Amino acid sequence: MRLTNFTDYALRILLYTAAHNDKLTTISEIQKTFDVSKGHLMKIVHLLSTEGYLYAVRGRSGGLKLGREPEEINLGELVRLTEPDFKLVECFGQDNQCIISHFCKLPGPFNKALDAFMTTLDSHTLKDMMISQSSFSTVPDPLFLRRGPEFLTEAETGEI
Amino acid sequence: MRLTNFTDYALRILLYTAAHNDKLTTISEIQKTFDVSKGHLMKIVHLLSTEGYLYAVRGRSGGLKLGREPEEINLGELVRLTEPDFKLVECFGQDNQCIISHFCKLPGPFNKALDAFMTTLDSHTLKDMMISQSSFSTVPDPLFLRRGPEFLTEAETGEI
Repeated sequence: MRLTNFTDYALRILLYTAAHNDKLTTISEIQKTFDVSKGHLMKIVHLLSTEGYLYAVRGRSGGLKLGREPEEINLGELVRLTEPDFKLVECFGQDNQCIISHFCKLPGPFNKALDAFMTTLDSHTLKDMMISQSSFSTVPDPLFLRRGPEFLTEAETGEI
Repeated sequence: MRLTNFTDYALRILLYTAAHNDKLTTISEIQKTFDVSKGHLMKIVHLLSTEGYLYAVRGRSGGLKLGREPEEINLGELVRLTEPDFKLVECFGQDNQCIISHFCKLPGPFNKALDAFMTTLDSHTLKDMMISQSSFSTVPDPLFLRRGPEFLTEAETGEI
């Protein structure tokens, strides 16, 4: 079960911009911080600007600022915007070809589970998630701490 | 946000086998029903047999039966088994390289959201999901009904 890298980077762009909102930030800065392709970042910044999450100042000394207050940037709303689909099973997609779609009872629990997932995200805003400027340059040990999921899959524990 | 096809087909194999548990079912039958590659089905059947969800009778007139009672096949447990990972954001994976992992507050809501998702699935078993044999051969109109998600993404509504 995954979200796209698009969503992951959208969140990081907003966290970075929120932490540096005393000045204009640039895509180059964000690219260097997270070591991700500029083309990918530009697509994400374009969407976030179009939707008002970012405000882009044009020109030679231009850059990005948050387009909304951090408390007005809701996590659930953002994930609904940045994910291309929520195709948990085939019949949740536009190209569904599953022949039991009409009779199947699985959509019930999967819709409920998705709703529980999104409702949890809906109760958080960027304001709750904000971290300091130094968090983007400090090198703690270990640098790449694993933060989830809170259970390990059987594939990862080597049991299968 | 997606689950893998592996999970989707594991669920369909179990639904099909549960509906036909008065006899042995074969991979060929399931392949014809769902029009999916035999190689993919064989990998899934292998895992489900190893883990006791299916019981494989070997030999010329062999086939598959459920290895557990339908009420003992829990949806959440199955999804934890069949999904290779739950990498919602980079730091939920084994290959995490995100430099703010130590300080980031996003893992909190994402772990809670994932927990809410899995807890919902944990409250359902295959018994609640069982459908009749005729559901696999009846041709309703429309055949490929879309069953979720209950909201449309902005990408799909054409707003972005």
